[in-house]
Amino acid sequence: RSGEMAKSTQLLDNEAFRAYATYAAIVLLKMMLMSLITAYFRVTRKAFANPEDTASFGKGESAKKYLRTDPDVERARRGHLNDLENIVPFFGMGLLYALSGPDLSTALLHFRIFTGARILHTLAYLIPLPQPSRGLSWAVGYAVTISMAYKVLKTSFYL
Amino acid sequence: RSGEMAKSTQLLDNEAFRAYATYAAIVLLKMMLMSLITAYFRVTRKAFANPEDTASFGKGESAKKYLRTDPDVERARRGHLNDLENIVPFFGMGLLYALSGPDLSTALLHFRIFTGARILHTLAYLIPLPQPSRGLSWAVGYAVTISMAYKVLKTSFYL
Amino acid sequence: RSGEMAKSTQLLDNEAFRAYATYAAIVLLKMMLMSLITAYFRVTRKAFANPEDTASFGKGESAKKYLRTDPDVERARRGHLNDLENIVPFFGMGLLYALSGPDLSTALLHFRIFTGARILHTLAYLIPLPQPSRGLSWAVGYAVTISMAYKVLKTSFYL
Repeated sequence: RSGEMAKSTQLLDNEAFRAYATYAAIVLLKMMLMSLITAYFRVTRKAFANPEDTASFGKGESAKKYLRTDPDVERARRGHLNDLENIVPFFGMGLLYALSGPDLSTALLHFRIFTGARILHTLAYLIPLPQPSRGLSWAVGYAVTISMAYKVLKTSFYL
Repeated sequence: RSGEMAKSTQLLDNEAFRAYATYAAIVLLKMMLMSLITAYFRVTRKAFANPEDTASFGKGESAKKYLRTDPDVERARRGHLNDLENIVPFFGMGLLYALSGPDLSTALLHFRIFTGARILHTLAYLIPLPQPSRGLSWAVGYAVTISMAYKVLKTSFYL
Repeated sequence: RSGEMAKSTQLLDNEAFRAYATYAAIVLLKMMLMSLITAYFRVTRKAFANPEDTASFGKGESAKKYLRTDPDVERARRGHLNDLENIVPFFGMGLLYALSGPDLSTALLHFRIFTGARILHTLAYLIPLPQPSRGLSWAVGYAVTISMAYKVLKTSFYL
């Protein structure tokens, strides 16, 4: 039994991979949080996308008026889409990067900067903070992913 | 040759990882199916997003009227986006979870419930079923991913 | 130290996995490029989604007119979303496929065709090329991912 456990957690014996697993889980959870924030705004602003979601507000015209867009809902949705566009490449590139034998301290630097930048990005989007807060936090996360891509391609290059 | 094969399928020797691979492939295929469903509605409802897609309907105004949104197309697109928002985190968290040495039976429980919930979610979205069918199936899949995140962070925690 | 490195790059010792890492990194970078293209069109067409992004154009009504949609921006965004819908399943299915012990030459064929098809898809979307250029390049990438799914399920099947 413990032998089987050891085998299955083999990748997690590698410290850089463990660090990756921790930060990847954190940013995935952060991305998932956007669903709850969007749902919160949909309910408090009464702004829905599907007729069946407004059925509890009554029938016909009285419910139809809640089928609308709301600035706060749309803002949360844009933040969520931006997470998909940036956290998904980080997850993928970070996985390959963690398998490419990086120095632990260099890997931690990448993962920590990305995670911090994306948390700032979400705050900048939702509060919202004046630009270039959101732009800069986006660019920092983007640059971290490019840096990992460079290491991955340098290590694995096989066209 | 067979030694090389064995090495490359090493992760798949682990039963929890094999189960993960199977269910991850199934939910990715389910997500990909949404592209075909959207395309089906675009063609049958004649509702397109790009001018070049309507060229076969003639030129000028006669084609331009098909550059429009349609409720069925938009519903399928919302279902697809919801899959991206939920199946992608499941894929990522599930991979880390499968590497974290879970009990096979616990892992199977997670993967099966998530897969069932997302199939129900798509049915609830497309038919559509009255709420809270869609909301509940969404919440069950979300809770499964959170549960896997807990195990991943408990096992790998390395900040 | 070198022993540690060797362990951490173990998966990359497998040639099919190395090929996967290279092509996965390339298509993830291609997907990330869509962010820059969208930003380029937003700035040159002066078409923004957030009030704080137009603050540098002045206050009040003079800035508000830049809160608008633009056909080139929307086209780049549709291309980006299509990448998420197709490159993300390729990344996930390709990872499982690379672990399923494929022949190196077969694996390279899958990865190369997918990568070529998605680059063509982006060109067809942005230029834009007349249909069925975009449709065909989309279908080729889709078929490659289905073919990898077949191999994954055949190898790992564990319901």
